[in-house]
Amino acid sequence: MHALKITRAENFPEWYQAVCREADLAEPSPTRGSMIIKPWGMGIWELMVANLDARIKATGHDNYYFPLLIPMSFIAKEAEHVDGFAKEMAVVTHHRLKNIDGELKPDPAAELEEPYVIRPTSETIIGDAMSRWIKSYRDLPLLMNQWANVMRWEMRTRLFLRTAEFLWQEGHTAHADKDDAMAETLRMLEVYRAFVEEAIAMPVVVGEKPENERFPGADNTFSIEAMMQDGKALQAGTSHYLGTHFAEAQNIRYQDKEGGMTLCHTTSWGVSTRLIGGLIMTHGDDDGLRTPPAIAPRQIVIVPMLRGKPEDAELKVYCEEIARELGGQDAFRAPLRVLVDLKDARPADKRWDWVRRGAPIICEIGPRDAANGQITFIRRDVLREGEKIKSHALSRADFIAQAPQVLADIQANLWRDAEARLHANIRTDIQTFDQLAAYFGTDEDDGKFKGWVRAGWSKPTGEALDQIGDRLKTLKLTIRNAPSAQSAALGACIFTGAPAVEEILIARSY
Amino acid sequence: MHALKITRAENFPEWYQAVCREADLAEPSPTRGSMIIKPWGMGIWELMVANLDARIKATGHDNYYFPLLIPMSFIAKEAEHVDGFAKEMAVVTHHRLKNIDGELKPDPAAELEEPYVIRPTSETIIGDAMSRWIKSYRDLPLLMNQWANVMRWEMRTRLFLRTAEFLWQEGHTAHADKDDAMAETLRMLEVYRAFVEEAIAMPVVVGEKPENERFPGADNTFSIEAMMQDGKALQAGTSHYLGTHFAEAQNIRYQDKEGGMTLCHTTSWGVSTRLIGGLIMTHGDDDGLRTPPAIAPRQIVIVPMLRGKPEDAELKVYCEEIARELGGQDAFRAPLRVLVDLKDARPADKRWDWVRRGAPIICEIGPRDAANGQITFIRRDVLREGEKIKSHALSRADFIAQAPQVLADIQANLWRDAEARLHANIRTDIQTFDQLAAYFGTDEDDGKFKGWVRAGWSKPTGEALDQIGDRLKTLKLTIRNAPSAQSAALGACIFTGAPAVEEILIARSY
Repeated sequence: MHALKITRAENFPEWYQAVCREADLAEPSPTRGSMIIKPWGMGIWELMVANLDARIKATGHDNYYFPLLIPMSFIAKEAEHVDGFAKEMAVVTHHRLKNIDGELKPDPAAELEEPYVIRPTSETIIGDAMSRWIKSYRDLPLLMNQWANVMRWEMRTRLFLRTAEFLWQEGHTAHADKDDAMAETLRMLEVYRAFVEEAIAMPVVVGEKPENERFPGADNTFSIEAMMQDGKALQAGTSHYLGTHFAEAQNIRYQDKEGGMTLCHTTSWGVSTRLIGGLIMTHGDDDGLRTPPAIAPRQIVIVPMLRGKPEDAELKVYCEEIARELGGQDAFRAPLRVLVDLKDARPADKRWDWVRRGAPIICEIGPRDAANGQITFIRRDVLREGEKIKSHALSRADFIAQAPQVLADIQANLWRDAEARLHANIRTDIQTFDQLAAYFGTDEDDGKFKGWVRAGWSKPTGEALDQIGDRLKTLKLTIRNAPSAQSAALGACIFTGAPAVEEILIARSY
Repeated sequence: MHALKITRAENFPEWYQAVCREADLAEPSPTRGSMIIKPWGMGIWELMVANLDARIKATGHDNYYFPLLIPMSFIAKEAEHVDGFAKEMAVVTHHRLKNIDGELKPDPAAELEEPYVIRPTSETIIGDAMSRWIKSYRDLPLLMNQWANVMRWEMRTRLFLRTAEFLWQEGHTAHADKDDAMAETLRMLEVYRAFVEEAIAMPVVVGEKPENERFPGADNTFSIEAMMQDGKALQAGTSHYLGTHFAEAQNIRYQDKEGGMTLCHTTSWGVSTRLIGGLIMTHGDDDGLRTPPAIAPRQIVIVPMLRGKPEDAELKVYCEEIARELGGQDAFRAPLRVLVDLKDARPADKRWDWVRRGAPIICEIGPRDAANGQITFIRRDVLREGEKIKSHALSRADFIAQAPQVLADIQANLWRDAEARLHANIRTDIQTFDQLAAYFGTDEDDGKFKGWVRAGWSKPTGEALDQIGDRLKTLKLTIRNAPSAQSAALGACIFTGAPAVEEILIARSY
C-alpha cells in the first residue's frame, strides 16, 4: 500500500492533484483559477527564489519593483506592435465599491477614466521606465529583475502548471547592440539551466524555440525543457532576445559614443511557480513528493515517539539536542534545516505526513533509541525495499557526522533517476511524419508513456511552418526546441524529406 | 554644501522626496499612486524581509500565499460585519480587452459575473480558508503569514508612506480562546519592536491604540510609533486582536475537547514598505540617507580612483582582493556585503552617489594607497567635521580586521542619535487642551519641530471619545497610543480634568 490513494500508473493527472493536496503544496481557492500556496509549497518556492536570486544578482542584475497595474494605453501600444498579442487579462475599471439598494457594487461614480490591466508580464511598463532612464551608452547595459505576481485569465487551470495568478521573476534588460543583448539572453538561459539542474535536480534540454513558438514580439526565444514522468515536456523557463521591437514601440534610445541616437536591443526572461509543478512530476512517486534536499524547507525531520507519558520530556530534550547539533552543520552551503515535529498527533501519522511531503530524511526516535544512542531513519529517495519501508540505523555521532553527505547523496540520486529517464526516452529512430503519427497516435490520454522524438528538419518558416504546426497539432504535438547541442550528422527533414539543417525535439507538453 | 539641493530645515517634505530620488530608493510611476522601487530601496526591503521573516518563522508561523483577487461577495460579508469598512479599492470587472472600432477596450462580452477586488488586506479570503481548515482544537493555534502586494485607492499619495500599491507582510492567526489570541497579538507586537529597533535602529513606543483609532473590526489594536525628524509620529506596525468578529462573519469554529463547536479568536498584524519611509525620516540627513549597516545592501563600497590608464588594472585587482577578504568576514551574523564600484563614471561622482544612498563605509582607493597598503574611508554616520568631509585612514590589515566592529559602531551610533531625539522630544508638562492648542497651533506646516505630548486621560469611549477626536483634529493631532510602559503616578485628564486612568501620546502623524 502506498501513501497516496492513487498511483501515477492509474491516473497521472489525478495523482498530480493528490500530491499537491497531500504534500501540503497548494489547493484551489475561491478565486477562479487562483491557488492557495500552502507552507511546504511556499517553503520550496522561497528556497528556489533565494537560490535563483543569488545567481541573478551574481550576474550583475539589480532587483526592482514595478506597479501591478498597467495603464491600458501601454497595452494598446504593445497590441499595435506585437503580433499574437494575448488579450485575456484582468481589467480594473472602478476604484470604489458602493452600497446600492442594499447590495455592494462597483460605484458608477468611481469609474476610471483609463482602465488598468493587472500585469500579465511587465515589458510595457518597464520599457517605459527604460525610455526615461537610459540617456547614453554609459547607462548600458541596464540589467533589471523583479519578483512579482502576474495574472493571465486562463480558461483551463491546473495547480502550479497553469493558474490565473502565479508568482515569477521577470528579467528585463537593455543593451547597446544585438551582440550584447544576445549574449545576455544566452547567459540567463544558462543561469536557468544551472539553477534548475543543480537546485531542483531536474535535467533539461536547452535550445531555441522554432519561429511559431516564440514569445510575441521576440526575435529569438530560447527555452529549457524538462521531461515529466508521463513523458510530456514541461517548458521550465524561457529567455527572449526581443531585438528592437519593444525599443521602437517605447522609444528606448541611447546617445552612442558618436553622439547619435540609437535604438536599444532588449531581452526578457522568466521562470515561475510552474517549476513546482515540474518538481512534482519529476521527483514525485506513489508515496507523494520527494523533495530535493537543496530546496527542501526541512531537510531532516525528527519524529519523537511520544506516548503522553512523563518520559516524553526527556525524549523531547534528546531530540532537540540532536536537532541543534545537526543545525550547526552546513549542507548545500547553508545551515542544515531540521525540525523536531512536536505536533499533537500520532507519530505514525506524522511520519506519513513527512513521507508525502518528501522530507529527505525522516528520523523516528523512541526512548530505546535514546537509551542506545542510536538513530533510526528513512531516506525518502529510497523509501522502500519491495513493498516494505526500508529503515537505516546509525549511532548518534555517525548520523550527525554523515547527515550532510547523506543529503548530498539523496540530491545526486534524484538527479541520476531523472537524468536516466530523460536520456532513455528521447527516440531518434523516427524519421517520417507517418512514423510519428503511428508512434504517438491521436489520443493524448491513452495513459501510455511516449517520451520525446528527436528528428532532423529543414527549418521552414512562415506559412510552411504554420502548416507543420497544424499537422503536429492533430497529434497533440509541438516542437519543443532545437537543442543547443546538435548532432554532427543530420539526416532528412521529418516533415518534408528534404535535407535537415538542424535537429528538433517533438513532444506532448504541459 | 551638502549632497542634496534641499535641506531638512528648508522644507522637510521636499527633502524627503529628494532623498527618495537621489538615494535610488523609489520614484513615481505612470500608474496613479503606485511607485517604482529602485535597487537601493529594493535591496533595503529585501534585507528587512529576510530579517523579519526569520523572526516570524522562529515564533512558529508558516508562510502561505493567498490570491490577489478577492470575490466581491467576501467583501460584502465583511462590509455587513465591520463598522468603518473602507470602500476605496481597485475593482476588476472584465477579463478581456478587445479592439473595438480601432480602440482597445474592456470587452463587454467578457464582463465578470461577480467582480473581484484587489486585496486591500486579506482577512476575508484567509478567514474563508480558516473556516475550511480548522476542524478541532488540535488544529489550533493556526499561525499564518504572507508576504504580498496590496492595494488601497489612496487619493493623496507619498512614496513609501502612502501609496496605492504597497508591499507588506500580513499575519493571520486563529486561537482557541481570548487569552491565547491576546498573547499572540502582544508577541507579534514585541517581534515588531525588536525587529524595528535592532535592524532599522528606529526606536519606537509600544502601546495600545484608543478605541477610535482601532482597525475596523478589532477589539484591540496595538502599534509601534516612531518619531520622525520633523517631530511627527509614524505608525510603523500594528497588531490586532480581532476577538470573534471575523470568526462569526466567516464561521470559523472548532470542536473543543468536550465536543462542542466554539468560535475561534483571531488576530492579524502587519508591517509594510512604509518602514522605508520611516527609515529615511529617522536616519536621513542633508547629504541623503544614512542606511543602518544591518539592512544596508552594500555595507562597504570601494571606489577605485581609476584614471583610464594601464595602472588601473592593478588597482582593480588590489580593490577586489580587499573586497574578497572583507566578504570572508561576518557582520550582523551574515557575510559582509561589499561592492567594488567599477561603473564608468568619475570617482568623485561615484563617491557622492554612495554618500546619498548612505552606504555605511565608503573607501576611496588610489594607486598611492595601494602602494602604501593603506585604506582611506569615510563613515556615513559621521560624514563631516564642520562642513568638511571627515576621512579616516587605517592600514589594510587593520581596516579589514576592524570592519565588522566599525559597522556595529555605526549601527549603534545611528540608534543612539534616534533614541536621544525620541526621548528629548516627548513633553510631559502640557496638562490642558488649551496648553496643547497653544503649543501646536493649527498650522501643521509652519516648519517648527513640535515633538509629542505625553499626558494623562480618563479614557472615555463612544461619543465622548469621538468629540475628543474632533477637537484634536482641529489641531491636526491624533492620539498615537497609550504606551505599554505607564508612569506610576497619573495626573488629571488633559481633556476633561477628571482623574487620569492612563497616559497617552498625542502627536501629528504621517
